Amino acid sequence: MAENNVVLLDFWPSSYGMRVKIALAETGVSYECKQEDFQAKSSLLLEMNPVHKMIPVLIHNGKSISESLNIVEYIDEVWNHKHSLLPSDPYKRSQARFWGDFIDKNVYSIGKRVWTVKGEEQELGKKQFIECLKKLEEVLGDNPYFGGENFGYVDVALIPFTSWFYTYETFGNLSIEAECPKLVGWAKRCIEKESVAKSLPHPHKIYEFALEYKQRHGF
Amino acid sequence: MAENNVVLLDFWPSSYGMRVKIALAETGVSYECKQEDFQAKSSLLLEMNPVHKMIPVLIHNGKSISESLNIVEYIDEVWNHKHSLLPSDPYKRSQARFWGDFIDKNVYSIGKRVWTVKGEEQELGKKQFIECLKKLEEVLGDNPYFGGENFGYVDVALIPFTSWFYTYETFGNLSIEAECPKLVGWAKRCIEKESVAKSLPHPHKIYEFALEYKQRHGF
Repeated sequence: MAENNVVLLDFWPSSYGMRVKIALAETGVSYECKQEDFQAKSSLLLEMNPVHKMIPVLIHNGKSISESLNIVEYIDEVWNHKHSLLPSDPYKRSQARFWGDFIDKNVYSIGKRVWTVKGEEQELGKKQFIECLKKLEEVLGDNPYFGGENFGYVDVALIPFTSWFYTYETFGNLSIEAECPKLVGWAKRCIEKESVAKSLPHPHKIYEFALEYKQRHGF
Repeated sequence: MAENNVVLLDFWPSSYGMRVKIALAETGVSYECKQEDFQAKSSLLLEMNPVHKMIPVLIHNGKSISESLNIVEYIDEVWNHKHSLLPSDPYKRSQARFWGDFIDKNVYSIGKRVWTVKGEEQELGKKQFIECLKKLEEVLGDNPYFGGENFGYVDVALIPFTSWFYTYETFGNLSIEAECPKLVGWAKRCIEKESVAKSLPHPHKIYEFALEYKQRHGF
């Protein structure tokens, strides 16, 4: 098997899959991307991630790594020695991991309530979603990136969710830019990077996916 | 401020706090341990972990690190260069982080249902708890430790929960040793290590705490 036989098991609207694509694009490593069908998971996915049976899974020379931020750290350790996404200082690394974990615990689960439910529950979801983004905006401060002067680990963790912002805004009838202008400014800066631009689907494509998802699930 | 001014904000029955104590004991770094009162959280805790307001928090030269496995990695990176808890190989590191995350997502939340609820819900909790431990036992295999020949990161992540096993067994009317003999053998090996022995409370002390907790919360 070749030195760098790299396969990504992905599902294109997944923000978690996008993280891995950005991290791989930052390294320049070439890889094969296989799209999974959630109605019929492939035997390869079940074999490679038997515990969670979820994408993304990175398969490097036949060995699998699961959980998106875990994969990002792996990519950083294997291929990114020169331009590591994580800072080299242990304290700054711990802060980056803390906020990566915060994003994991909050953004998807709160965001889902903005576009899949209605009424009071949706209003509460919208309020909590904006609170969550404002907290992250506070962490960003006046820096161009969460990584400071450079695009880094927390940027990779968060930027994929911005491809869902149009969906949240449309279904939730809210303006994220009006609430969090600095965060939206940061997202615009990130999308100018080639590694990000080529890894994120167009927001309208995500919206179409979400619309069909809602119809299929009877929301 | 001294080079190594280290303070741990802790709550003694917390398995998450125990992880940090074990990791610190492995390094030999001396530190001050401050017990938090959950009925009245200290202003120091609120200042040092304003996001989650939870222990454990490690304060190193005035800077705070939160989330137990994040703290363990920090300790490893700052003080543990010679006997790192995480393996040096990136793939093995990714597997250790994966199982650390699996423990975080499952053991406490499932375990709580073994000792705080009754009837069908408890029976389901017991079944899932044993399934979870059996999965971990499978990962351990025939190795003395999750870290292979050496006590490592996954051992630190899991061993604190074994101080709760007596509580789970007593309230849940089950024998973990009968279900998972290899895992209990592993726990006995770990507790022989000084770093573990001095960081885990006696299981009977945990049981008394749990009994009082149940009475106070009317379970």
